[in-house]
Amino acid sequence: MNVEGRWRRTIELADDRASVIILDQARLPYEVHWLRLAELADFERAIRDMHVRGAPLIGVTAAYGIAVALHRGVALDTAAEALQRTRPTAVNLQWALDTMRRELADVAASEREGRAFAIAARICDEDVTRCEAIGEHGLPLIRQAAERGGPVRVLTHCNAGWLATVDWGTALAPIYKAHEAGIPVHVWVDETRPRNQGVLTAWELAQHGVPHTLIADNAGGHLMQRGEVDLCIVGTDRTTRRGDVCNKIGTYLKAVAAHDCGVPFYAAVPTPSIDWACDDARTIPIEERSADEVRYIRGVRITESAVANPAFDVTPSRLVTALITERGVVEPLALVNLERTS
Amino acid sequence: MNVEGRWRRTIELADDRASVIILDQARLPYEVHWLRLAELADFERAIRDMHVRGAPLIGVTAAYGIAVALHRGVALDTAAEALQRTRPTAVNLQWALDTMRRELADVAASEREGRAFAIAARICDEDVTRCEAIGEHGLPLIRQAAERGGPVRVLTHCNAGWLATVDWGTALAPIYKAHEAGIPVHVWVDETRPRNQGVLTAWELAQHGVPHTLIADNAGGHLMQRGEVDLCIVGTDRTTRRGDVCNKIGTYLKAVAAHDCGVPFYAAVPTPSIDWACDDARTIPIEERSADEVRYIRGVRITESAVANPAFDVTPSRLVTALITERGVVEPLALVNLERTS
Repeated sequence: MNVEGRWRRTIELADDRASVIILDQARLPYEVHWLRLAELADFERAIRDMHVRGAPLIGVTAAYGIAVALHRGVALDTAAEALQRTRPTAVNLQWALDTMRRELADVAASEREGRAFAIAARICDEDVTRCEAIGEHGLPLIRQAAERGGPVRVLTHCNAGWLATVDWGTALAPIYKAHEAGIPVHVWVDETRPRNQGVLTAWELAQHGVPHTLIADNAGGHLMQRGEVDLCIVGTDRTTRRGDVCNKIGTYLKAVAAHDCGVPFYAAVPTPSIDWACDDARTIPIEERSADEVRYIRGVRITESAVANPAFDVTPSRLVTALITERGVVEPLALVNLERTS
Repeated sequence: MNVEGRWRRTIELADDRASVIILDQARLPYEVHWLRLAELADFERAIRDMHVRGAPLIGVTAAYGIAVALHRGVALDTAAEALQRTRPTAVNLQWALDTMRRELADVAASEREGRAFAIAARICDEDVTRCEAIGEHGLPLIRQAAERGGPVRVLTHCNAGWLATVDWGTALAPIYKAHEAGIPVHVWVDETRPRNQGVLTAWELAQHGVPHTLIADNAGGHLMQRGEVDLCIVGTDRTTRRGDVCNKIGTYLKAVAAHDCGVPFYAAVPTPSIDWACDDARTIPIEERSADEVRYIRGVRITESAVANPAFDVTPSRLVTALITERGVVEPLALVNLERTS
C-alpha cells in the first residue's frame, strides 16, 4: 500500500534474497523506518517486541523466519519452536509454522532452504490475495450502509489494516475497497491503549486519504448510542470454529455495545486466523504483556501501583453479526460449514 | 483523607478566611501541590482546566468561588454566570450556584460576604457527611459480596474518590468503609483516557493502603467475562430523575458489559448530582473537550489526524442495578420516590 507516496508491502525479501526488510511499526507514525531481519533472533525480537504485529503479518514473518534460519544453518524444529514462543494468541503464527514444517518435511536437505523461501513467498502472496478478497466480500456491506445517504461511518478497534498484514489489511480492506469505489466512508479509530495501535490505523488511513477521526477507547459506545456509527469492523487473532472472535483487548466492549445499540458488528477473518481445533474460546491463551506498557507513558512512570495488561479478549459469536472471510461473508455459527468444504 | 500521612480535605478555607486552598489535581500523582484561589478568575481556571474535578468538588469549589468573588467586589450574578460557564455536564455546579443565589437573595449587602462564606462552608461540610453516608449505605453491598470468600473485587471507572469530593468520595466511599471494617477489597482501576483519572484513583487508594490494580480501559470487559469482577461502582456527573446515569466517557461500555456478564453495576449518587428537572438523558449537554487531550501524550503529538473527545456518556437505567445515595440504596426507577419525599 501507499507509504509516503510509494507502493510497498509491509514485508519484502531483501536484495540478498537471504533476509527480509520490514516496515518498523515500533517507530510509526513518527518515523518511516525499514528494518532488516537477517538472523533467527532478529525475527524473534521483531515479533515479540511488535516491530511487526497483526496476526496475518506475524504469520508471514514467521514463515520467512524459518527460511532465513535455515539459510543460517539453524535446524527447522529449533527455529519453529523459537518462533512459536514469541507470542501466544494469534493462531496465524502456528498456522504458518505448521505449513512450513509440513511442506518441508519430505524435502531433501540440499533443497530445503530454497524451498523454504519459495513457500514463505507464496504464503506472503496468498495473504495479499486473501485480504483483497476480504475487501471484495466486505464491500457490499458498506455499499448497503451507504444507501442511508452520507458517509458510511465505520468504527474499528486496534489496527487490522495493511500494517497488520502484507497488504490491504483485514478489517480495513472493505474500507479501502469502498474508498476506491467512490463510496464516502468515515472511520472512527479507537486509540487502543495501551499500545495505541489506533495511531497506526489513523496513519495508514491518512496515507490513502480515507477520512477518519481518532477517539479514546472510551468513546465508541457513546457514539453508537448517538447513532453515529453505521457498522463496526474489527480483525481477529484467533477465531474458534464456533465463531467466537478473539481479538485485541477491548473488542468485546465494542461488540456488546454494538449489540445493545443495534449496530452491525463484523469481524474480518482470513481462514488462517481460524483455529479449527478450538471449540471453547476459554482455552485460547490470552497473552499477558508487560505491566510497563501501561505503567510508562512515553518514558514517564505514571503510577507506582500494580498493573494488569491482558492483550486480547474474546467476543462471543452471539454478539457478532457476521464474519467476513476471503471465501465470503458467513454467520459465526455457519463457520463450521466452511470447514467442511475446505 | 490521607495525603502523605496528613489528614486533609481537597478544599480548605485559607488562613486569611478570604481565599481557599485546593489540592492541585493537575499535578497529581507526580507532585502534591496546594494551590490558592483568591480571585474569581482563579476559580474559573481551576474548574475549567481540572485543577479541581469531580462533580461534588466542582460544586463546592463554585460555592466558595461565589464567596471569594463577593469579597473581591464582584456582583453575585456576574460571578455565578462566569462559574456556570466553566463546565457544562456536572449538575452539581448548577446546584451549588442555585443554592448560593437562593440563600443570598434576601441577605443585606453588608452581610452578604460573611453569609456566602458560611453557606459555602456548610455545603462543603454537607458534602463530607453525604459522602460518608453513601459509604455506609454501600458497605452492605460489599459485605454481601464478601460472603463468596476472598477479597471483594470492585471495578471502578475514572476517579470518584475523595479527590472528586471534599472527603470520602462517592464510588470509593463504600470501599473505604469496607477497608476500615476489615473486609478485604481489591479494586480494578480503569485508566480512564484521555485524562487518566484512574491514576488519581490508584494514588488515593495507595494513600490508604487499599489493594488495587490499574488497567487499560479496554480490559474491564475481559475481567468481567472471566469472573474476576464481583461488582462495579462508579460515580456520576448528572443522574436524571428516571435513573439514567451520566458519567465519565466509557462508563456505558462497562455497564453494558457488566449487564452481559451478570455483574452488579452500581452508581454512587449524592442527591445534588440528581437533575430532578431532567426526564430525557439525551438533553444532557455532553462536554466536548479539547482534541489535544487525545492528540498529545505528555507533550508529544501522537497523530496528525482529526480527533473527537466527548467527555461523558449516559448509562441507561436498565443497565444500573441500583443507585447508592446518601439516603439509601434505590433502584434507578424508584428514584422518583426519593424526590417525592425530599
